[in-house]
Amino acid sequence: MKASQFFVSTLKEAPADAEIVSHKLMMRAGLIKRLGAGIYNYMPMGLRVIRKVEAVIREEMNRAGAIELLMPVVQPAELWQETGRFDKMGPELLRVKDRHDRDFIIQPTSEEVVTDIARQELRSYKQLPKNFYHIQTKFRDERRPRFGIMRGREFTMKDAYSFDRDMEAAGRSYDAMFKAYVAIFDRMGLQYRAVAADTGAIGGDRSHEFQVIADTGEDAIVYCPASDYAANIELAEALSLIPERAAAAEPLVKTPTPGKATCADVAELLDLPLQRTVKSLALATDELGEDGKVVKTTVWLLLVRGDHELNEVKASKIEGLKGGFRFATIAEIDAHFGCKPGYLGPIGLKQPVKVVADRTVANMSDFVCGANDADFHYTGANWGRDLPEPDAVADIRNVVEGDPSPDGRGTLAIQRGIEVGHVFYLGTKYSQAMNATYLDEKGKPQFMEMGCYGIGVTRLLGAAIEQNHDERGIIWPDAMAPFRVVVCPIGMDRSEAVRAEAERLYQSLQALGVDVLLDDRGERPGAMFADWELIGVPHRVVISDRGLKDGRLEYQGRRDAQATPVAVAEVDAFLKDKLGV
Amino acid sequence: MKASQFFVSTLKEAPADAEIVSHKLMMRAGLIKRLGAGIYNYMPMGLRVIRKVEAVIREEMNRAGAIELLMPVVQPAELWQETGRFDKMGPELLRVKDRHDRDFIIQPTSEEVVTDIARQELRSYKQLPKNFYHIQTKFRDERRPRFGIMRGREFTMKDAYSFDRDMEAAGRSYDAMFKAYVAIFDRMGLQYRAVAADTGAIGGDRSHEFQVIADTGEDAIVYCPASDYAANIELAEALSLIPERAAAAEPLVKTPTPGKATCADVAELLDLPLQRTVKSLALATDELGEDGKVVKTTVWLLLVRGDHELNEVKASKIEGLKGGFRFATIAEIDAHFGCKPGYLGPIGLKQPVKVVADRTVANMSDFVCGANDADFHYTGANWGRDLPEPDAVADIRNVVEGDPSPDGRGTLAIQRGIEVGHVFYLGTKYSQAMNATYLDEKGKPQFMEMGCYGIGVTRLLGAAIEQNHDERGIIWPDAMAPFRVVVCPIGMDRSEAVRAEAERLYQSLQALGVDVLLDDRGERPGAMFADWELIGVPHRVVISDRGLKDGRLEYQGRRDAQATPVAVAEVDAFLKDKLGV
Repeated sequence: MKASQFFVSTLKEAPADAEIVSHKLMMRAGLIKRLGAGIYNYMPMGLRVIRKVEAVIREEMNRAGAIELLMPVVQPAELWQETGRFDKMGPELLRVKDRHDRDFIIQPTSEEVVTDIARQELRSYKQLPKNFYHIQTKFRDERRPRFGIMRGREFTMKDAYSFDRDMEAAGRSYDAMFKAYVAIFDRMGLQYRAVAADTGAIGGDRSHEFQVIADTGEDAIVYCPASDYAANIELAEALSLIPERAAAAEPLVKTPTPGKATCADVAELLDLPLQRTVKSLALATDELGEDGKVVKTTVWLLLVRGDHELNEVKASKIEGLKGGFRFATIAEIDAHFGCKPGYLGPIGLKQPVKVVADRTVANMSDFVCGANDADFHYTGANWGRDLPEPDAVADIRNVVEGDPSPDGRGTLAIQRGIEVGHVFYLGTKYSQAMNATYLDEKGKPQFMEMGCYGIGVTRLLGAAIEQNHDERGIIWPDAMAPFRVVVCPIGMDRSEAVRAEAERLYQSLQALGVDVLLDDRGERPGAMFADWELIGVPHRVVISDRGLKDGRLEYQGRRDAQATPVAVAEVDAFLKDKLGV
Repeated sequence: MKASQFFVSTLKEAPADAEIVSHKLMMRAGLIKRLGAGIYNYMPMGLRVIRKVEAVIREEMNRAGAIELLMPVVQPAELWQETGRFDKMGPELLRVKDRHDRDFIIQPTSEEVVTDIARQELRSYKQLPKNFYHIQTKFRDERRPRFGIMRGREFTMKDAYSFDRDMEAAGRSYDAMFKAYVAIFDRMGLQYRAVAADTGAIGGDRSHEFQVIADTGEDAIVYCPASDYAANIELAEALSLIPERAAAAEPLVKTPTPGKATCADVAELLDLPLQRTVKSLALATDELGEDGKVVKTTVWLLLVRGDHELNEVKASKIEGLKGGFRFATIAEIDAHFGCKPGYLGPIGLKQPVKVVADRTVANMSDFVCGANDADFHYTGANWGRDLPEPDAVADIRNVVEGDPSPDGRGTLAIQRGIEVGHVFYLGTKYSQAMNATYLDEKGKPQFMEMGCYGIGVTRLLGAAIEQNHDERGIIWPDAMAPFRVVVCPIGMDRSEAVRAEAERLYQSLQALGVDVLLDDRGERPGAMFADWELIGVPHRVVISDRGLKDGRLEYQGRRDAQATPVAVAEVDAFLKDKLGV
């Protein structure tokens, strides 16, 4: 490609609404252009990156035996009503009525449609396993679209769906997709982790997120440097930090702590380590009658150590909280604790409250907690002596850096990540809801076991940039770059030698199948170099009259601190070696 | 690709709602699967054809200097309000509200968005010309979706938009696209015609439809076998069939024609050629006041020869009818003609009526027309003698087979066609509405001259099948086929020799870059052959034990009446020659 026949459009400044570096750089490099909130045009330079990403995904999906098809963007509501998602999903599901007032949705994913295809097309066990995927435009009406295409509304996703005869076969499909994802992200040249993730109501351990490592990531990912343990923060298991509960050594004392409503403030006031305090969080669950009205409310007190944080996903797995919970209201707190928030605790409750202690809290002695009296805390609190044993002990906190790894092989570290892929075992959730069965060897209908596997194609661009950039711009991994090599002739319009060598090299690289751009725009060197550093082309060759007189060109990798002179006679071999072609 | 790793799903019978052959064959061959009215899944076999078509289009668009980008499916209404199309377009424009109750549309085309990009990005004459295109999902909420993907609601379209500094440059962009379209449809191996089409309010002669020739086509296309004249029926110029008006030879006679309300019936009753009769059509135009209410209605009588048909597009170009017209009501007809329809004519009008005669009618003498009296016609009617000269003479009829070609070089023929592409000069319609200007050499803002260029990617599949099929199924042109070659081994599971030769040939063709499918499903020969003839793979090689014993394979082209034996040793060379690789 020659730049004069392409569309290069860079900006000195990022627009004011661009919040994060990838958004800023994508706007400045002319990869995307905002059309509306969370809706972007993919400009020619950006589309090239998308096509590169799609090609890698497609190759690896096909290699793994998945079969590409294409499901519509606009989907009839009927199928979504079969699974209940039409009603259950919130306003992020974009609903639309056609001219006949029939309901449709703009697809955010395609479980319903693909299951509808499967129940019609896959009739016998002989046709299983099957894995169908497509790369298609999706829409999620995010409440607050932001970060450019990282959390946009319209985006491109690769979504695959596997159909198997039983759990074991579904496991093999899952493993094949996991392996394909590893191949895909390896080929993209990204640093990433596959982390175990929560499986929610489906259960089991077959849910993994692929997280691109980046300090700016929205997700916290937990891993053990000494082993291969990795999970997202929702799932990562927190062990008790106290192996055994010590005997009580202090008396229970009600201590004034005026205006000190947080554990940190109380610890400071009392000159005690934060680790001696216990944080009390009041939740509530409602039992509904047949008419959908609340017939009974239970108040819960969840206890985590003062320096720890409640993990709501873990809490939602506790018996009694599984059906959903909410934070208790001020009125409920007053009725059960006789006190305002900030001074709650498990001792001296006014009405029955279910007490759940985190594993670490359950082994604490002589701890500090709220006294259920405004401006007072207890010190020297001890289980069994001052209050009954908790109703339940469970892992309900987020792990923190330095916690013991649940596999017993070291301590945990935490990184930030950007989720770009997810493999997920669905079981028979959709096949049961939509009656998608196959006939087994005995002619008996059986529900198909399903898995779903997504990659955020457009989000991947943002994630790659968050991970790979410097003050000058984007640094694309070779496999994602809009162009791998840019040939920059200086003074091409004045020097026939420069023009001839630029054309020769351009054609030579094209003949090798290298995606090369010749910058024939006639820009001045400074502006030209700034453009390609901003856009992030990984390899640059500069051709100048002065250099040619010495028989030299200049090569510079995008991460290189300075240029390398290369003899004209050797440049083809040099580049073949650099590019591995 | 091996069939066992792909998805082959054929049907013996087409579903009852499939009306035309392409729809039936696409359903039977498993290319598409209905999801809702006018909404289809593209199954793996169908998607392969789409990708082939897209690749050809992309190559030729790029070669012509067009630049690919990607504009969103969901577009903010604001831009469509700028051009007025948000309100002007009927319910075929799918409108949707987001969670904040803001208006969006699901794109049917992208003039507004691309013009918005252009007005921001193209600021100087130095940046022109530019041609941006994308291949994207479109939606048109057709009142009556039918014919499968030929007139679906969701479809894939390639739409390109050119931006130029003046009309002359816009003409060059138009010509480049015309040439690219010729290359595209030539490469697809389709029989087609580029026909001149109406330019509507834009004017000029720069509008061409690319019509795939097929007896089942919805459009009538007119061409001159002796010249390169070709136009669609709306545009094709009809010359007068009577060079000069002859003198009156008959007296005007009011003749009873009881119950004969059509020209054909009257001609039969009077034993006269249909060509002696004149058909009278009453139209009406309304003049609106400032309050939008009708302040004045004019009634028109349009006259075409009894064997001709009114062309409404041509009529809409007559001074006075340009603003839009309707057929007159029974009440209006009664008031102006004192008669019911079927017996109307230009003689003896009750109230003023504007009379427009087709060119041929204007030169008729001694003609037959309605007498404005139920059950009566006039014979021997003559202009000037029996009625005043018409208010206007114009080309207002459809041409018919055998009419003189407007270029004076023979007579016209008519074929049916399916519109698969359209190139259209837009002028400054959108750039004026959206204030899309560039700065010329003097720094003065000028409106950009635009053109738009569409290809119906998914419709092209249907059109190709309408043109290329037989009683056994589809006959894909090589460039569109889901697979170019299918290797069919017979008894692969029983014969090691068959398996070995099948694998060898499969790999040999793959190494040559041929898109080959090895049918390793183990189907019986009859079912296997029927599948591939239905699916329409252009080249088939059959490998059997019996054949191998004689050192032979069998080759059969999809259009060949019978198979050709080929020696095993020569099959690679034979296929290389057949496939041109």
